[in-house]
Amino acid sequence: MSSLKPVLVVAGIGAGGGTGGATAIRAALYNAGHGVWKPFLDITPEDVKIITETNIEGSFAFAHEVLSDFKQNEIDTTNGKRGILIFTGATASIRGNTTTSAFAAGKFALRALSQSLAKEFGKQNIHVAHAIIDGGISTPLSRSRCNNSEWDQNEDIRLSPEAIASSYVYLASQERSAWTWELDLRPAHEKW
Amino acid sequence: MSSLKPVLVVAGIGAGGGTGGATAIRAALYNAGHGVWKPFLDITPEDVKIITETNIEGSFAFAHEVLSDFKQNEIDTTNGKRGILIFTGATASIRGNTTTSAFAAGKFALRALSQSLAKEFGKQNIHVAHAIIDGGISTPLSRSRCNNSEWDQNEDIRLSPEAIASSYVYLASQERSAWTWELDLRPAHEKW
Amino acid sequence: MSSLKPVLVVAGIGAGGGTGGATAIRAALYNAGHGVWKPFLDITPEDVKIITETNIEGSFAFAHEVLSDFKQNEIDTTNGKRGILIFTGATASIRGNTTTSAFAAGKFALRALSQSLAKEFGKQNIHVAHAIIDGGISTPLSRSRCNNSEWDQNEDIRLSPEAIASSYVYLASQERSAWTWELDLRPAHEKW
Amino acid sequence: MSSLKPVLVVAGIGAGGGTGGATAIRAALYNAGHGVWKPFLDITPEDVKIITETNIEGSFAFAHEVLSDFKQNEIDTTNGKRGILIFTGATASIRGNTTTSAFAAGKFALRALSQSLAKEFGKQNIHVAHAIIDGGISTPLSRSRCNNSEWDQNEDIRLSPEAIASSYVYLASQERSAWTWELDLRPAHEKW
Repeated sequence: MSSLKPVLVVAGIGAGGGTGGATAIRAALYNAGHGVWKPFLDITPEDVKIITETNIEGSFAFAHEVLSDFKQNEIDTTNGKRGILIFTGATASIRGNTTTSAFAAGKFALRALSQSLAKEFGKQNIHVAHAIIDGGISTPLSRSRCNNSEWDQNEDIRLSPEAIASSYVYLASQERSAWTWELDLRPAHEKW
Repeated sequence: MSSLKPVLVVAGIGAGGGTGGATAIRAALYNAGHGVWKPFLDITPEDVKIITETNIEGSFAFAHEVLSDFKQNEIDTTNGKRGILIFTGATASIRGNTTTSAFAAGKFALRALSQSLAKEFGKQNIHVAHAIIDGGISTPLSRSRCNNSEWDQNEDIRLSPEAIASSYVYLASQERSAWTWELDLRPAHEKW
Repeated sequence: MSSLKPVLVVAGIGAGGGTGGATAIRAALYNAGHGVWKPFLDITPEDVKIITETNIEGSFAFAHEVLSDFKQNEIDTTNGKRGILIFTGATASIRGNTTTSAFAAGKFALRALSQSLAKEFGKQNIHVAHAIIDGGISTPLSRSRCNNSEWDQNEDIRLSPEAIASSYVYLASQERSAWTWELDLRPAHEKW
Repeated sequence: MSSLKPVLVVAGIGAGGGTGGATAIRAALYNAGHGVWKPFLDITPEDVKIITETNIEGSFAFAHEVLSDFKQNEIDTTNGKRGILIFTGATASIRGNTTTSAFAAGKFALRALSQSLAKEFGKQNIHVAHAIIDGGISTPLSRSRCNNSEWDQNEDIRLSPEAIASSYVYLASQERSAWTWELDLRPAHEKW
């Protein structure tokens, strides 16, 4: 998985239970992504490979590690969880489009994985969620690319990483009687 | 609308902006529902009438009032909202089934309304959301009907109203750069 | 139901079985529709009423009549059917949008009805289907309104009623081992 | 792609146009599939590999060949097509479940590909479709496995390959003004 973008693993959230050590992981985020926006006939085997690694091979390997670990955790009595695993999706998770055949194939696959895991591991008090990010995110990368400070400063039209993180923290806090598998996140003024 | 079940209107949430008076409504919940579970040929015109009143006539009238009011509010600077309107859906919002032709028709309609409004009013900084409740809720009514204390005491298998309310409060707090239109809520052990 | 647009009832298709008389109805089409495209706050109670009549009251009453009749039919041995009931949907059956709150509410409701009926009556060898029409249809009405002969003559960009009818006839002919509940129909060049 | 199951390429359907030779391919079917039904933690890297090959690498390579060829075809004047490419999906194309994390990931990906291609190549008069097969199919393999002649002889409860093929032939025949991207196919008595 060395080719994958960094994957954030947040440790220690919800430390009400745990197996004892300070190192018990309670929350994990699969945030790897690779954008391919091309007419279909321009897509290369290399594009397909990275899409597959990012959305299938990487996610399956990551989830295998995380869920195996979570099963060892005791249930956190405050929210009924042994752990939470969140996947980051996109508009392309639910809709293919003219230049997204590769990107959407990967994102659809990731969504299927997340739904299957939510159904399988919920019974074991492991929470699996999927967030559909629908819009551009203000990041150092997007800022350097766009150099559009008007866009960047208008929170009505682009997502901020902090707001996304806030939703993820909320998901991690949801009590066992009402867990969310999927939610969408988009700026107030986004056209969709 | 006298035949509708009570509809909760929560006033005063997010009072960062407002038109001045203490009475400005900032959050509204359309929670009216009427369950009809019958083979199709047993459904009566009366059933159709109440389903229509609850999910279309009532919701359209309610949303008209609420949104007209919200438009008068100033934007709450903490979350970018003039107000939030939340609709309560169910599994039947996304799936018809053998005994839910009337119930699902109503819930699908309500979901369509909520999506249309989210798209139309987001641009005006009014947040519209839809929650899909997938499972039984522990209420005085369900407790009196079931008399199943095992079910009632096991938060892994039924929703608690407080947990649903907690999600609604979270939606109300979401910042303008990352609003959710739809999320599902179900107990950890729910089969779905 | 006197306010409803005409509903086509095609009799006699697939006359392999039947209860004997020449009048046994084998196929029915619920084609009623009423378009409302307005900003939400401009929608009138009259709009809501006609949407409700067209998509709920009318469809429930129509389906009640048709399905009660179909149950009296013997199974057509060529396709395993006592009858087929087809509902006509639209893009708004699966997506609400800024000016379609009323139209989509009705179309979502109709789709829910059709799915519920397909599940309930399939077991009784009654076929229920739903067609999502995604695009403009060339009709005398649309031609008189648009007066755009270029549009009308280009079959790549608009639907012809005959092509839709051809799909409906195909659905009516499907054998019992492979029935379709839902299909979409759109011109080859449609953007979607 | 040597590990893939046989892929049927039907040549010569709709020979109204064509580039002249008898060998112009007008219809292609991507029917490759590989079933993995396992608890998630039992899934092996080998399972992931075959799922990926079958649903992504194989389908992308196949579609690349087919679509490149189709673009060379003249438009068949009877249906407005240069060619049709059909993908075979399953219930797992639209729903992940407890033992289908790998299978559904693959089938979701294939569906995304098919939708993207339908949108991109429709404008070039190439028809791309996706069939959701929802139920067991009576094949020599399934018959040898089940040895359940009651199941096999009851067309109300299982699909026959001929009925599926009939739908594919119908899709190939659809005129340009009303093409279907997706339809579902299931036995009359299937519970869904």
